[in-house]
Amino acid sequence: MTFNRWGTPDESKPLSPSVVRLLRTALGIQQEQTPGDAEADVVLSEVRLTEADIAALGALVGPGYVTCEYAHRRGRARGKSYPDLLDWHTKKTIDAPDAVIAPGTEEEVLSVLEYCSEADIAVIPFGGGTSVVGGLTPVSGGHRAVLSLDLTRFDKLEDVDAESGLATFGAGMFGPQAELELAKHNLQLGHFPQSFPYATIGGYAATRSSGQHSAGYGRFDEMVHALTVVTPTGILQLGGDSPASAAGPDLRELFLGSEGTLGVITRVRCRVHPVPEAKRYEAFRFPNFEAGARAVRLVAQHGTGPSMIRLSDEIETSLNLSSPDGMAGGAATSGCLCLTMFEGTPEHAAARHDETRKLLLEAGGTSLGEGPVRAWERGRFGAPVFRDALLDVAGVCETLETATTWANIHRLKTAVGRALATSLTKHGTMAVVMCHISHVYATGCSLYFTVVAKQSEHAHEQWAAAKRAASEAIVAHGGTITHHHAIGTDHRPYMQSEIDPLAVTILRTVKNTLDPAGILNPGKLIP
Amino acid sequence: MTFNRWGTPDESKPLSPSVVRLLRTALGIQQEQTPGDAEADVVLSEVRLTEADIAALGALVGPGYVTCEYAHRRGRARGKSYPDLLDWHTKKTIDAPDAVIAPGTEEEVLSVLEYCSEADIAVIPFGGGTSVVGGLTPVSGGHRAVLSLDLTRFDKLEDVDAESGLATFGAGMFGPQAELELAKHNLQLGHFPQSFPYATIGGYAATRSSGQHSAGYGRFDEMVHALTVVTPTGILQLGGDSPASAAGPDLRELFLGSEGTLGVITRVRCRVHPVPEAKRYEAFRFPNFEAGARAVRLVAQHGTGPSMIRLSDEIETSLNLSSPDGMAGGAATSGCLCLTMFEGTPEHAAARHDETRKLLLEAGGTSLGEGPVRAWERGRFGAPVFRDALLDVAGVCETLETATTWANIHRLKTAVGRALATSLTKHGTMAVVMCHISHVYATGCSLYFTVVAKQSEHAHEQWAAAKRAASEAIVAHGGTITHHHAIGTDHRPYMQSEIDPLAVTILRTVKNTLDPAGILNPGKLIP
Repeated sequence: MTFNRWGTPDESKPLSPSVVRLLRTALGIQQEQTPGDAEADVVLSEVRLTEADIAALGALVGPGYVTCEYAHRRGRARGKSYPDLLDWHTKKTIDAPDAVIAPGTEEEVLSVLEYCSEADIAVIPFGGGTSVVGGLTPVSGGHRAVLSLDLTRFDKLEDVDAESGLATFGAGMFGPQAELELAKHNLQLGHFPQSFPYATIGGYAATRSSGQHSAGYGRFDEMVHALTVVTPTGILQLGGDSPASAAGPDLRELFLGSEGTLGVITRVRCRVHPVPEAKRYEAFRFPNFEAGARAVRLVAQHGTGPSMIRLSDEIETSLNLSSPDGMAGGAATSGCLCLTMFEGTPEHAAARHDETRKLLLEAGGTSLGEGPVRAWERGRFGAPVFRDALLDVAGVCETLETATTWANIHRLKTAVGRALATSLTKHGTMAVVMCHISHVYATGCSLYFTVVAKQSEHAHEQWAAAKRAASEAIVAHGGTITHHHAIGTDHRPYMQSEIDPLAVTILRTVKNTLDPAGILNPGKLIP
Repeated sequence: MTFNRWGTPDESKPLSPSVVRLLRTALGIQQEQTPGDAEADVVLSEVRLTEADIAALGALVGPGYVTCEYAHRRGRARGKSYPDLLDWHTKKTIDAPDAVIAPGTEEEVLSVLEYCSEADIAVIPFGGGTSVVGGLTPVSGGHRAVLSLDLTRFDKLEDVDAESGLATFGAGMFGPQAELELAKHNLQLGHFPQSFPYATIGGYAATRSSGQHSAGYGRFDEMVHALTVVTPTGILQLGGDSPASAAGPDLRELFLGSEGTLGVITRVRCRVHPVPEAKRYEAFRFPNFEAGARAVRLVAQHGTGPSMIRLSDEIETSLNLSSPDGMAGGAATSGCLCLTMFEGTPEHAAARHDETRKLLLEAGGTSLGEGPVRAWERGRFGAPVFRDALLDVAGVCETLETATTWANIHRLKTAVGRALATSLTKHGTMAVVMCHISHVYATGCSLYFTVVAKQSEHAHEQWAAAKRAASEAIVAHGGTITHHHAIGTDHRPYMQSEIDPLAVTILRTVKNTLDPAGILNPGKLIP
């Protein structure tokens, strides 16, 4: 990915004249488009590692696999949150990791962690670099330097057991690469988060990623059979062949979501499944979000079986989805758009489709045919570049998400939407806040918010205030601080409300045991 | 339950004359039936607590809620494994907990744990007393006495959120009591382990229980939203309202399966669902276990949706299920019997049934109609009393279980079956070893073995050797040491093979943090 934008340069898209007009009218965004220069000559922080360090690290992994080169450091200095991207637009000097290292084996990772523990160097594991919660900010935590530990050499599909539906991946394999390798066996993971083109298997595991087909295939943490984790204290093998076990606590769950603070995930054994023979698509319109949410809840609770189901609120439906060139072809200019997909054998997909559509129609939905779902599928990974285009015209564009019980979603949605709008208005800018449900469970669902506004003079403070207001509303109204974006640095202030104080003590104790020098991702996740 | 048998006295059933004949012919079991006397005057170990201890404990919970009475101590001295039951037949003195305490609030549990930490008293949390892995053996672990902590006063359905499908239970609620309370709201848990009539909600959570409808409703650990756990260091609230979260490690998974060694589970918030409107039943016959296992695998991997599916091997089919008065009505005297159930709305159950039966018939099954499934459903909780009847004629009767990947089940099944038969033959006794699959996953399944043999002169050693042989075969052939019976004392020697040495260190570290005096269930679970 380009260091200061989402995606590769050829993915970049300027805003259409109609969108520019809309932004001007609705939000007062006036600025001319000034696309960020991918080759901009940003100044990076001074390298704090010595030549002796680099030589010593080179001796551990091979001299070609450690570097202080500008482009490598710059490419690993930030993730892809709005504040991360804003830094490239606003800051003269960017703090970057002092070096990048790419070990090739678990033993090499262990020796790097041992060296860094001894030599007082913080280590930030790096997969695809798609964090949107400050997960890659090079916080030193008082250590004398920061090393970015790149996992891309762990890039093999190591084994496939087609009969059991299991495959073992190197943690550095990218989503598309994993799917291409699996396709040779007529298998797939079926895990498609929006970051899919650039995210890695290890990143999925370390952050509890959730894909757009979570209704059908589950969250990534649910797919994981076994993990290899390298800690400064040693190499851990967690989980085995058994699909389930009652042999005590499940320690995989201590490392899933650990975001590189307890160890470096190097290998993941996952559930895979045959490439579906058939896919079916149908979109529905509901008169309002309440009716749509009730219908989606019934689908989840009756287990009618879509592999994907999502529901946009009225604002998202009207802004994103109903423009003549948009995905609903103008069919859903009012109400709420609901998209569904069904996968499997032709009979399986048809049966699930029939049962689901019957329920959605009975619950007040109107069919819009398959067009809107196919349009969504084509553009499903494309949304993040819109954010860069908005930044180019000095717009705010960011997303945040939570989840709660079905009984609580409207209260939570109202509170978060109001908190965002109120905070941005205080900074003198109008805001559009959209929301959708994209992950459903029998007991509740996620709420995913997209915010668009005009940047104020103090853009960092403007968003920090809005994010704080939203986070406090989430905490106060029974939501989780993150359903699938993870904690990083941005959500860390809210971990103390999210988990019990004694649970924090447990996490710190485990961290101290595995990483006594505290070098792994300091300042992230654990409060 | 009767202290020395499964169930209540009126559940007790003598063996039928035809079974006695079969046992005599096939296994040489000759002894006349001598039903164990439930009122037998067993001698218990001396009480090691002082009057001052009892007074102090009584001051914490109320004097009526702590006792050293014979019947109370005897009723909590053992679980219900074959070696546990054998103890009542063979030992003159039974080591029992020194006292039984029944706190009524979490604060009282905390004060009891604080007192015991200070006063050097081991604590064994006690729910329904159904452990079949030595989970209740009163091991003192070097402490000066043992206190059985009875949770039956945590017996309330505390809240119900029917819209979200969530309910909060006191950990001491028994399965049937929970279902009766939920039925008032037209809801159910749908969790039916064989221990259902006598097991508690807290026990389900502490041991990662798996119910006979796990295909439809999941394992119990998958149903848990939130837990309250009292440790000697404080009270922990784990999990919240959100159906899923990416906020770091999932610490519920540290306490699920912790078997009272890390804390006392006092409250559990679980997923519940509407009482199904319709149930459908169909049994199938497969020519052999391989064909049946393949068919059951396809059902799990295609997600055709039975709420219950199980497959007996040839021996179990012929012995247990095909007698003229047995469940298959003589229809499956050869081959393997497969039972299926479907639940939900009438349309949902019918669609799942149609898709599943089509697949099973294509995979070589022959329909046997619904009779065998209905017969199984009637007798589903009745099997354990057969074990007592066998003990009364000096028979061995025990079960053990494991799980592995689909690709590995035949290798594992053969190895465990052979290990059991070889070991028992060495002790001069013929053995019948039966096996069934009763929990299926996309990637693998459980294997549940039932062993029947004649007791040798050294009955304890005979079974210990057989169990050791089976456990070593499980470890050597890629199975988990337990899929749903838990670890207790019986499986503890195999934990070191089951989990990584560094994982053991993590468990010990967490234990030391929460229970620094080491009073909670010493000698259990953690190696």
